[in-house]
Amino acid sequence: MGFNEFPSRLLENAVNEFASLPGIGRKTAFRLVMNLLKRDHEEVRRFGESIIKLHSEIHYCKVCNNISDTEICNICNDDKRDKNIICVVESIQDVMAIENTRQYKGLYHVLGGIISPIDGIGPSDLKIDSLEDKVKGGAVKEIIFALSTTMEGDTTNYYLFRRLSKYDISLTTLARGVAIGDELEYTDEITLGRAINNRNPYHQQSNL
Amino acid sequence: MGFNEFPSRLLENAVNEFASLPGIGRKTAFRLVMNLLKRDHEEVRRFGESIIKLHSEIHYCKVCNNISDTEICNICNDDKRDKNIICVVESIQDVMAIENTRQYKGLYHVLGGIISPIDGIGPSDLKIDSLEDKVKGGAVKEIIFALSTTMEGDTTNYYLFRRLSKYDISLTTLARGVAIGDELEYTDEITLGRAINNRNPYHQQSNL
Repeated sequence: MGFNEFPSRLLENAVNEFASLPGIGRKTAFRLVMNLLKRDHEEVRRFGESIIKLHSEIHYCKVCNNISDTEICNICNDDKRDKNIICVVESIQDVMAIENTRQYKGLYHVLGGIISPIDGIGPSDLKIDSLEDKVKGGAVKEIIFALSTTMEGDTTNYYLFRRLSKYDISLTTLARGVAIGDELEYTDEITLGRAINNRNPYHQQSNL
Repeated sequence: MGFNEFPSRLLENAVNEFASLPGIGRKTAFRLVMNLLKRDHEEVRRFGESIIKLHSEIHYCKVCNNISDTEICNICNDDKRDKNIICVVESIQDVMAIENTRQYKGLYHVLGGIISPIDGIGPSDLKIDSLEDKVKGGAVKEIIFALSTTMEGDTTNYYLFRRLSKYDISLTTLARGVAIGDELEYTDEITLGRAINNRNPYHQQSNL
Protein backbone atom coordinates (compact mmCIF):
# COMPACT_ATOMS: atom_id res chain seq x y z
CA MET A 1 0.00 0.00 0.00
CA GLY A 2 1.46 3.35 -1.01
CA PHE A 3 0.52 6.66 0.56
CA ASN A 4 0.79 9.15 -2.23
CA GLU A 5 -2.56 10.78 -1.76
CA PHE A 6 -4.29 11.44 1.51
CA PRO A 7 -8.04 12.03 1.60
CA SER A 8 -7.47 14.65 4.29
CA ARG A 9 -4.82 17.28 4.95
CA LEU A 10 -5.31 16.86 8.71
CA LEU A 11 -4.60 13.15 8.41
CA GLU A 12 -1.54 13.81 6.27
CA ASN A 13 -0.19 16.36 8.78
CA ALA A 14 -0.51 13.95 11.67
CA VAL A 15 1.14 11.14 9.67
CA ASN A 16 3.99 13.47 8.68
CA GLU A 17 4.57 14.44 12.31
CA PHE A 18 4.74 10.83 13.49
CA ALA A 19 6.95 9.88 10.54
CA SER A 20 9.43 12.57 11.66
CA LEU A 21 10.19 10.52 14.79
CA PRO A 22 13.32 8.34 14.71
CA GLY A 23 12.65 4.76 13.62
CA ILE A 24 9.05 5.48 12.57
CA GLY A 25 8.45 5.07 8.85
CA ARG A 26 5.42 6.38 6.96
CA LYS A 27 3.53 3.10 7.13
CA THR A 28 4.01 2.83 10.87
CA ALA A 29 3.11 6.51 11.28
CA PHE A 30 -0.12 5.91 9.37
CA ARG A 31 -0.94 2.90 11.53
CA LEU A 32 -0.37 4.92 14.71
CA VAL A 33 -2.56 7.78 13.47
CA MET A 34 -5.35 5.37 12.50
CA ASN A 35 -5.15 3.98 16.03
CA LEU A 36 -5.57 7.50 17.45
CA LEU A 37 -8.51 8.14 15.11
CA LYS A 38 -10.37 5.19 16.62
CA ARG A 39 -10.01 6.49 20.16
CA ASP A 40 -12.45 8.82 21.85
CA HIS A 41 -12.01 12.56 21.71
CA GLU A 42 -10.91 13.13 25.30
CA GLU A 43 -8.18 10.50 25.07
CA VAL A 44 -6.70 12.00 21.91
CA ARG A 45 -6.80 15.53 23.35
CA ARG A 46 -4.88 14.23 26.39
CA PHE A 47 -2.29 12.63 24.09
CA GLY A 48 -1.72 15.85 22.18
CA GLU A 49 -1.58 17.97 25.32
CA SER A 50 0.92 15.65 26.99
CA ILE A 51 3.28 16.45 24.11
CA ILE A 52 2.68 20.21 24.20
CA LYS A 53 2.96 20.38 28.00
CA LEU A 54 6.14 18.33 27.94
CA HIS A 55 7.82 21.22 26.21
CA SER A 56 6.01 24.22 27.63
CA GLU A 57 5.91 23.21 31.30
CA ILE A 58 9.00 21.10 31.85
CA HIS A 59 11.98 22.45 33.77
CA TYR A 60 15.63 21.58 33.75
CA CYS A 61 16.90 21.54 37.34
CA LYS A 62 18.95 24.70 37.99
CA VAL A 63 21.44 22.70 40.01
CA CYS A 64 22.05 19.49 38.08
CA ASN A 65 20.29 20.06 34.67
CA ASN A 66 18.19 16.95 35.17
CA ILE A 67 14.65 17.10 33.81
CA SER A 68 12.14 18.14 36.46
CA ASP A 69 8.62 19.43 37.06
CA THR A 70 10.04 22.07 39.41
CA GLU A 71 12.94 24.52 39.32
CA ILE A 72 15.05 22.26 41.52
CA CYS A 73 14.64 18.53 40.88
CA ASN A 74 13.54 15.96 43.47
CA ILE A 75 17.04 14.53 43.79
CA CYS A 76 18.76 17.88 44.48
CA ASN A 77 15.93 18.77 46.87
CA ASP A 78 16.18 15.51 48.83
CA ASP A 79 17.78 16.07 52.27
CA LYS A 80 18.68 12.40 52.54
CA ARG A 81 21.01 12.51 49.52
CA ASP A 82 24.74 12.95 50.11
CA LYS A 83 25.59 16.46 48.84
CA ASN A 84 29.33 15.69 48.93
CA ILE A 85 29.28 13.33 45.94
CA ILE A 86 28.39 14.34 42.39
CA CYS A 87 27.98 11.79 39.63
CA VAL A 88 28.66 13.31 36.20
CA VAL A 89 26.52 11.83 33.42
CA GLU A 90 25.85 12.60 29.79
CA SER A 91 22.04 12.63 29.79
CA ILE A 92 18.80 12.33 31.70
CA GLN A 93 18.55 8.70 30.59
CA ASP A 94 21.78 7.98 32.47
CA VAL A 95 20.40 9.53 35.66
CA MET A 96 17.36 7.28 35.33
CA ALA A 97 19.50 4.21 34.69
CA ILE A 98 21.62 4.84 37.79
CA GLU A 99 18.59 5.74 39.92
CA ASN A 100 17.02 2.44 38.93
CA THR A 101 19.93 0.55 40.50
CA ARG A 102 18.96 2.12 43.88
CA GLN A 103 22.67 1.91 44.78
CA TYR A 104 23.63 5.58 44.58
CA LYS A 105 22.69 8.18 47.18
CA GLY A 106 24.67 11.22 46.01
CA LEU A 107 23.74 13.98 43.55
CA TYR A 108 24.07 14.19 39.77
CA HIS A 109 25.37 16.65 37.22
CA VAL A 110 23.98 16.24 33.69
CA LEU A 111 26.47 17.48 31.09
CA GLY A 112 23.85 17.53 28.33
CA GLY A 113 26.14 15.68 25.95
CA ILE A 114 29.65 14.45 25.48
CA ILE A 115 32.70 15.95 23.77
CA SER A 116 32.50 14.85 20.13
CA PRO A 117 34.49 16.82 17.55
CA ILE A 118 32.82 14.87 14.71
CA ASP A 119 29.41 16.15 15.82
CA GLY A 120 30.83 19.61 16.50
CA ILE A 121 30.32 19.33 20.26
CA GLY A 122 33.13 20.93 22.28
CA PRO A 123 33.56 21.50 26.02
CA SER A 124 31.85 24.91 25.81
CA ASP A 125 28.64 23.24 24.59
CA LEU A 126 28.41 21.19 27.78
CA LYS A 127 27.58 22.19 31.36
CA ILE A 128 31.20 21.97 32.50
CA ASP A 129 31.65 25.51 33.88
CA SER A 130 28.78 25.04 36.30
CA LEU A 131 30.31 21.73 37.42
CA GLU A 132 33.60 23.47 38.17
CA ASP A 133 31.70 26.21 40.05
CA LYS A 134 30.19 23.55 42.31
CA VAL A 135 33.66 22.19 43.05
CA LYS A 136 34.96 25.71 43.77
CA GLY A 137 32.04 26.11 46.20
CA GLY A 138 33.87 23.65 48.45
CA ALA A 139 31.11 21.26 49.53
CA VAL A 140 32.06 18.56 46.99
CA LYS A 141 34.36 15.75 48.13
CA GLU A 142 34.05 13.32 45.23
CA ILE A 143 33.18 13.52 41.54
CA ILE A 144 32.27 10.26 39.80
CA PHE A 145 32.72 10.21 36.03
CA ALA A 146 29.89 7.99 34.75
CA LEU A 147 30.24 8.44 31.00
CA SER A 148 30.06 5.91 28.17
CA THR A 149 33.09 3.68 27.56
CA THR A 150 33.48 5.12 24.07
CA MET A 151 36.23 7.27 22.60
CA GLU A 152 34.04 10.35 23.16
CA GLY A 153 33.39 9.30 26.75
CA ASP A 154 37.11 8.80 27.37
CA THR A 155 37.89 12.18 25.80
CA THR A 156 35.34 13.87 28.04
CA ASN A 157 36.66 12.01 31.09
CA TYR A 158 40.16 13.22 30.30
CA TYR A 159 39.03 16.81 29.74
CA LEU A 160 37.10 16.83 33.03
CA PHE A 161 40.08 15.28 34.79
CA ARG A 162 42.37 18.09 33.57
CA ARG A 163 39.86 20.76 34.62
CA LEU A 164 39.17 19.30 38.05
CA SER A 165 42.41 17.61 39.16
CA LYS A 166 43.75 20.84 40.66
CA TYR A 167 41.05 20.78 43.34
CA ASP A 168 41.40 18.75 46.52
CA ILE A 169 38.65 16.22 45.74
CA SER A 170 38.67 12.61 44.70
CA LEU A 171 37.87 11.90 41.05
CA THR A 172 36.54 8.40 40.44
CA THR A 173 35.05 6.48 37.55
CA LEU A 174 32.64 3.58 37.25
CA ALA A 175 34.16 0.13 37.67
CA ARG A 176 34.77 -1.54 34.32
CA GLY A 177 34.68 -5.29 34.03
CA VAL A 178 32.77 -8.31 32.89
CA ALA A 179 29.04 -7.60 33.02
CA ILE A 180 27.05 -9.69 35.46
CA GLY A 181 25.52 -12.66 33.66
CA ASP A 182 28.03 -12.42 30.79
CA GLU A 183 29.94 -15.49 29.67
CA LEU A 184 33.71 -15.00 29.59
CA GLU A 185 33.88 -16.72 26.23
CA TYR A 186 31.93 -13.91 24.60
CA THR A 187 33.40 -10.95 26.50
CA ASP A 188 35.50 -8.65 24.31
CA GLU A 189 39.27 -8.68 24.84
CA ILE A 190 39.63 -5.13 26.11
CA THR A 191 36.96 -5.54 28.77
CA LEU A 192 38.34 -8.92 29.83
CA GLY A 193 41.90 -7.56 29.90
CA ARG A 194 40.87 -4.66 32.12
CA ALA A 195 38.85 -6.98 34.33
CA ILE A 196 41.95 -9.16 34.92
CA ASN A 197 44.19 -6.18 35.63
CA ASN A 198 41.68 -4.60 38.02
CA ARG A 199 40.79 -7.84 39.82
CA ASN A 200 39.35 -7.56 43.32
CA PRO A 201 39.71 -9.70 46.47
CA TYR A 202 37.01 -12.34 46.35
CA HIS A 203 34.90 -11.15 49.30
CA GLN A 204 34.10 -7.81 47.59
CA GLN A 205 32.07 -9.63 45.02
CA SER A 206 29.62 -10.94 47.59
CA ASN A 207 27.52 -7.77 47.66
CA LEU A 208 26.68 -7.96 43.97
CA MET B 1 17.78 0.38 31.45
CA GLY B 2 14.56 0.16 33.42
CA PHE B 3 12.02 2.94 33.74
CA ASN B 4 10.55 2.52 37.17
CA GLU B 5 11.02 6.06 38.32
CA PHE B 6 10.68 9.17 36.20
CA PRO B 7 12.25 12.44 37.30
CA SER B 8 9.20 14.27 35.98
CA ARG B 9 5.48 13.54 35.89
CA LEU B 10 5.19 15.43 32.56
CA LEU B 11 7.83 13.18 31.04
CA GLU B 12 6.14 10.08 32.41
CA ASN B 13 2.75 11.17 31.03
CA ALA B 14 4.17 11.68 27.55
CA VAL B 15 5.96 8.32 27.65
CA ASN B 16 2.78 6.60 28.82
CA GLU B 17 0.80 8.13 25.95
CA PHE B 18 3.29 6.99 23.32
CA ALA B 19 3.54 3.55 24.91
CA SER B 20 -0.23 3.20 24.51
CA LEU B 21 0.20 3.10 20.72
CA PRO B 22 0.25 -0.33 19.05
CA GLY B 23 3.74 -1.78 18.61
CA ILE B 24 5.40 0.93 20.71
CA GLY B 25 6.98 -0.40 23.90
CA ARG B 26 8.06 1.72 26.86
CA LYS B 27 11.68 1.93 25.74
CA THR B 28 10.72 3.09 22.27
CA ALA B 29 8.18 5.52 23.74
CA PHE B 30 10.90 7.00 25.95
CA ARG B 31 13.25 7.35 22.97
CA LEU B 32 10.54 9.14 20.96
CA VAL B 33 9.77 11.52 23.81
CA MET B 34 13.46 12.30 24.29
CA ASN B 35 13.61 13.13 20.58
CA LEU B 36 10.70 15.55 20.99
CA LEU B 37 12.37 17.13 24.02
CA LYS B 38 15.38 18.04 21.91
CA ARG B 39 13.28 19.86 19.31
CA ASP B 40 12.35 23.50 19.47
CA HIS B 41 9.18 24.65 21.10
CA GLU B 42 7.22 25.57 17.96
CA GLU B 43 7.86 22.21 16.33
CA VAL B 44 6.62 20.28 19.36
CA ARG B 45 3.52 22.46 19.68
CA ARG B 46 2.73 21.72 16.02
CA PHE B 47 3.15 17.98 16.66
CA GLY B 48 0.76 18.05 19.60
CA GLU B 49 -1.79 20.19 17.77
CA SER B 50 -1.74 17.95 14.69
CA ILE B 51 -2.97 15.15 16.96
CA ILE B 52 -5.63 17.24 18.67
CA LYS B 53 -6.89 18.74 15.39
CA LEU B 54 -6.98 15.32 13.77
CA HIS B 55 -9.79 14.42 16.12
CA SER B 56 -11.52 17.74 16.64
CA GLU B 57 -11.60 18.99 13.05
CA ILE B 58 -11.76 15.87 10.91
CA HIS B 59 -14.96 14.85 9.16
CA TYR B 60 -16.28 11.55 7.92
CA CYS B 61 -17.85 12.06 4.51
CA LYS B 62 -21.65 12.03 4.85
CA VAL B 63 -21.98 10.09 1.62
CA CYS B 64 -19.25 7.43 1.73
CA ASN B 65 -17.88 7.58 5.35
CA ASN B 66 -14.37 8.20 4.05
CA ILE B 67 -12.20 10.51 6.13
CA SER B 68 -12.31 14.11 4.90
CA ASP B 69 -11.55 17.72 5.78
CA THR B 70 -15.01 18.69 4.59
CA GLU B 71 -18.55 17.35 5.05
CA ILE B 72 -18.49 15.68 1.65
CA CYS B 73 -15.15 14.17 0.64
CA ASN B 74 -13.15 15.11 -2.47
CA ILE B 75 -14.03 11.86 -4.21
CA CYS B 76 -17.80 12.17 -3.73
CA ASN B 77 -17.56 15.86 -4.72
CA ASP B 78 -15.61 15.14 -7.92
CA ASP B 79 -17.82 15.56 -10.99
CA LYS B 80 -15.46 13.43 -13.08
CA ARG B 81 -16.06 10.30 -11.00
CA ASP B 82 -18.61 7.76 -12.19
CA LYS B 83 -21.54 7.98 -9.75
CA ASN B 84 -23.02 4.73 -11.06
CA ILE B 85 -20.35 2.49 -9.52
CA ILE B 86 -19.76 2.08 -5.79
CA CYS B 87 -16.79 0.17 -4.44
CA VAL B 88 -17.51 -1.25 -0.97
CA VAL B 89 -14.44 -1.37 1.30
CA GLU B 90 -13.77 -2.09 4.94
CA SER B 91 -11.70 0.97 5.86
CA ILE B 92 -10.16 4.30 4.86
CA GLN B 93 -6.84 2.50 4.26
CA ASP B 94 -8.52 0.42 1.55
CA VAL B 95 -9.82 3.57 -0.19
CA MET B 96 -6.27 4.92 -0.18
CA ALA B 97 -4.84 1.66 -1.50
CA ILE B 98 -7.31 1.55 -4.41
CA GLU B 99 -6.88 5.29 -5.13
CA ASN B 100 -3.14 4.75 -5.35
CA THR B 101 -3.65 2.30 -8.22
CA ARG B 102 -5.24 5.19 -10.26
CA GLN B 103 -7.34 2.53 -12.00
CA TYR B 104 -10.73 3.20 -10.43
CA LYS B 105 -12.94 6.16 -11.29
CA GLY B 106 -16.14 5.33 -9.41
CA LEU B 107 -17.21 6.16 -5.85
CA TYR B 108 -16.60 4.33 -2.56
CA HIS B 109 -18.60 3.21 0.42
CA VAL B 110 -16.61 2.62 3.61
CA LEU B 111 -18.31 0.01 5.80
CA GLY B 112 -16.21 0.92 8.84
CA GLY B 113 -15.38 -2.71 9.54
CA ILE B 114 -16.24 -6.24 8.56
CA ILE B 115 -18.66 -8.80 9.96
CA SER B 116 -16.74 -10.68 12.64
CA PRO B 117 -18.75 -12.57 15.27
CA ILE B 118 -15.56 -13.29 17.26
CA ASP B 119 -14.98 -9.55 17.71
CA GLY B 120 -18.67 -8.95 18.32
CA ILE B 121 -19.14 -7.04 15.05
CA GLY B 122 -22.46 -7.74 13.36
CA PRO B 123 -24.11 -6.22 10.27
CA SER B 124 -25.82 -3.51 12.36
CA ASP B 125 -22.41 -2.18 13.47
CA LEU B 126 -21.48 -1.45 9.85
CA LYS B 127 -22.73 1.18 7.40
CA ILE B 128 -24.84 -1.29 5.46
CA ASP B 129 -28.26 0.38 5.73
CA SER B 130 -26.91 3.55 4.12
CA LEU B 131 -25.42 1.45 1.32
CA GLU B 132 -28.80 -0.15 0.65
CA ASP B 133 -30.42 3.32 0.71
CA LYS B 134 -28.06 4.41 -2.07
CA VAL B 135 -29.08 1.39 -4.15
CA LYS B 136 -32.78 2.12 -3.51
CA GLY B 137 -32.12 5.68 -4.73
CA GLY B 138 -31.76 4.17 -8.22
CA ALA B 139 -28.59 5.85 -9.54
CA VAL B 140 -26.32 2.89 -8.76
CA LYS B 141 -25.63 0.39 -11.56
CA GLU B 142 -22.78 -1.64 -10.04
CA ILE B 143 -21.53 -2.47 -6.58
CA ILE B 144 -17.98 -3.84 -6.29
CA PHE B 145 -17.25 -5.87 -3.16
CA ALA B 146 -13.58 -5.08 -2.37
CA LEU B 147 -13.18 -6.80 0.99
CA SER B 148 -10.35 -8.92 2.36
CA THR B 149 -10.07 -12.52 1.17
CA THR B 150 -10.55 -13.78 4.71
CA MET B 151 -13.38 -15.72 6.27
CA GLU B 152 -14.77 -12.46 7.68
CA GLY B 153 -14.50 -10.83 4.27
CA ASP B 154 -16.31 -13.73 2.62
CA THR B 155 -19.03 -13.64 5.28
CA THR B 156 -19.53 -9.92 4.72
CA ASN B 157 -19.57 -10.43 0.93
CA TYR B 158 -22.25 -13.07 1.32
CA TYR B 159 -24.34 -10.92 3.67
CA LEU B 160 -24.13 -7.95 1.30
CA PHE B 161 -25.02 -10.20 -1.64
CA ARG B 162 -28.17 -11.40 0.14
CA ARG B 163 -29.20 -7.83 1.01
CA LEU B 164 -28.53 -6.38 -2.44
CA SER B 165 -29.24 -9.20 -4.92
CA LYS B 166 -32.94 -8.28 -5.09
CA TYR B 167 -32.09 -4.98 -6.78
CA ASP B 168 -31.46 -4.71 -10.52
CA ILE B 169 -27.76 -3.89 -10.31
CA SER B 170 -24.62 -5.87 -11.01
CA LEU B 171 -22.69 -7.11 -7.98
CA THR B 172 -19.03 -7.77 -8.68
CA THR B 173 -15.93 -8.62 -6.68
CA LEU B 174 -12.23 -8.02 -7.13
CA ALA B 175 -10.43 -10.49 -9.38
CA ARG B 176 -8.59 -13.14 -7.37
CA GLY B 177 -5.50 -14.74 -8.75
CA VAL B 178 -1.75 -14.94 -8.69
CA ALA B 179 -0.30 -11.60 -7.57
CA ILE B 180 1.80 -9.79 -10.15
CA GLY B 181 5.46 -10.58 -9.59
CA ASP B 182 4.69 -13.75 -7.61
CA GLU B 183 6.36 -17.01 -8.52
CA LEU B 184 3.94 -19.85 -9.12
CA GLU B 185 6.11 -22.19 -7.08
CA TYR B 186 5.39 -20.18 -3.91
CA THR B 187 1.74 -19.33 -4.56
CA ASP B 188 -0.65 -21.00 -2.12
CA GLU B 189 -2.82 -23.82 -3.45
CA ILE B 190 -6.18 -22.11 -3.01
CA THR B 191 -5.11 -18.98 -4.87
CA LEU B 192 -3.48 -21.01 -7.63
CA GLY B 193 -6.53 -23.30 -7.90
CA ARG B 194 -8.88 -20.31 -8.26
CA ALA B 195 -6.52 -18.68 -10.74
CA ILE B 196 -6.67 -21.79 -12.98
CA ASN B 197 -10.44 -22.09 -12.73
CA ASN B 198 -10.97 -18.39 -13.46
CA ARG B 199 -8.41 -18.20 -16.26
CA ASN B 200 -8.84 -15.37 -18.80
CA PRO B 201 -8.23 -15.12 -22.55
CA TYR B 202 -4.62 -14.07 -23.03
CA HIS B 203 -5.22 -10.60 -24.52
CA GLN B 204 -6.96 -9.35 -21.32
CA GLN B 205 -3.65 -9.53 -19.50
CA SER B 206 -2.04 -6.97 -21.75
CA ASN B 207 -3.36 -3.96 -19.82
CA LEU B 208 -1.68 -4.97 -16.58
